[in-house]
Amino acid sequence: MEGYRGFLGLLVSALLVGFLSVIFVLVWVLHFREGLGWDGGALEFNWHPVLAVTGFVFIQGIAIIVYRLPWTWKCSKLLMKSIHAGLNAVAAILAIISVVAVFDYHNVRNVPHMYSLHSWVGLTAVILYVQQLVLGFLIFLLPWAPLSLRAVVMPIHVYSGLLLFGTVIATVLMGVTEKLFFALKNPSYHSFPPEGVFTNTLGLLILVFGALIFWIVTRPQWKRPREPGTILLQPNGGTEGMEGAIAISSSHSPDSADAELSSEGAARKRTLGLDDAGQRSTM
Amino acid sequence: MEGYRGFLGLLVSALLVGFLSVIFVLVWVLHFREGLGWDGGALEFNWHPVLAVTGFVFIQGIAIIVYRLPWTWKCSKLLMKSIHAGLNAVAAILAIISVVAVFDYHNVRNVPHMYSLHSWVGLTAVILYVQQLVLGFLIFLLPWAPLSLRAVVMPIHVYSGLLLFGTVIATVLMGVTEKLFFALKNPSYHSFPPEGVFTNTLGLLILVFGALIFWIVTRPQWKRPREPGTILLQPNGGTEGMEGAIAISSSHSPDSADAELSSEGAARKRTLGLDDAGQRSTM
Repeated sequence: MEGYRGFLGLLVSALLVGFLSVIFVLVWVLHFREGLGWDGGALEFNWHPVLAVTGFVFIQGIAIIVYRLPWTWKCSKLLMKSIHAGLNAVAAILAIISVVAVFDYHNVRNVPHMYSLHSWVGLTAVILYVQQLVLGFLIFLLPWAPLSLRAVVMPIHVYSGLLLFGTVIATVLMGVTEKLFFALKNPSYHSFPPEGVFTNTLGLLILVFGALIFWIVTRPQWKRPREPGTILLQPNGGTEGMEGAIAISSSHSPDSADAELSSEGAARKRTLGLDDAGQRSTM
Repeated sequence: MEGYRGFLGLLVSALLVGFLSVIFVLVWVLHFREGLGWDGGALEFNWHPVLAVTGFVFIQGIAIIVYRLPWTWKCSKLLMKSIHAGLNAVAAILAIISVVAVFDYHNVRNVPHMYSLHSWVGLTAVILYVQQLVLGFLIFLLPWAPLSLRAVVMPIHVYSGLLLFGTVIATVLMGVTEKLFFALKNPSYHSFPPEGVFTNTLGLLILVFGALIFWIVTRPQWKRPREPGTILLQPNGGTEGMEGAIAISSSHSPDSADAELSSEGAARKRTLGLDDAGQRSTM
């Protein structure tokens, strides 16, 4: 792997910043707020930021870069797809529970639902994330989707995944803003109370985590290499996604369960017969 | 251009949604808020969202995709770089004025500066945006930077540009959230007053605009083609950025002012001597 040390440094940084975000959100609710519980009150509300940051930010971020870990390149693509889907499923479940916590809290207090921009964007993100998960499962994990369909959907899948990740981070930053303006009355947010400074720092950590994941996932040199014994189908006209090209079994009649998308990229049109040098150069 | 109609449809949608965002922010401050002025009060504060949305979101978004307009592909790269830099400079100036408006407003009202997460992220974004502009000008627009330096910096430039664009959108959404919780007291934000619903819609429009720009700029088939008479220097090991490969004059001794980065991508290492088919396949 080219730039292995650089990759490792960035991965460790991402994990560190991600862990720190989770610790910060826990300290926020356990030390500065009322703690955690499932009572329909503030303790239940506090699960909302904890689960959003842990599941919807941290675990989603790891799910995005899981194909890029070089020590997994010897694992089958099916296993890696399952891990990718599994992590995203865990993230989705935590995100849904985090939404349930807020709805419960609102119900008990008779506060209307869905009035803020944070709630509009957040609920849309959860719904689209679940849709992305279901479509990804049907098209890429189950063995029945034809390769042509996978090739058409893959660039959209990659794009939607990154867009949703960014949107979730924006939603969390809105949520932090909303909560601090709500909660910090005496002393007020604008008098720089420790909770304000601490939670602003949490927001920065989440942003830095997103930036690290975005860098790691967009470096072509850190892409999972195509499987041995596969050839590249070269996109004609460059319809491949951000991440590269499509690889199928060299038999040209792949078992669709094993048909590998060599990376998160895809091609709408494919032409065969390019020499290997030409094919390699797309990697 | 492959998928010209699709490109045109998305471009028109992006322009429409972008214009609509600008109109929405104007209606917000002129109809729902106090209007515009430069008096140190609310009228001056209102320049903050107007200039942030117009300059830092809309004009920055256009600046990002300006290389992708196919009718500009006959224009010299130097002209297009100047337009890209010019639009970003206008965006930076409007962003700076928008920050000045808030600082003025805070000074007159004796409100402390820089206490909110919105302000922390926003000011950081403005500073990094100006740094990106200055470095871009020095390295890509002025003729003196060696091609090797441009090749190293280009992927960072593209990544930083997209990251900053996303961060600015997140900052605007935080700002909208902050302002609505501040301003909507009677009737309260949670009673769904017209201003709340209207400004939430503005937030959604900005998010959709960002999503459209992100799609347009990450489709490899809509990349500006390399100049005629250039050959591709193929990245060895795939260090090219998200956007593709590097093209220099076929003389191999390009005038550095005209040395073209065929797209927003770059290569750290370059090897010569690939046949044309191999080179084309990176496009």
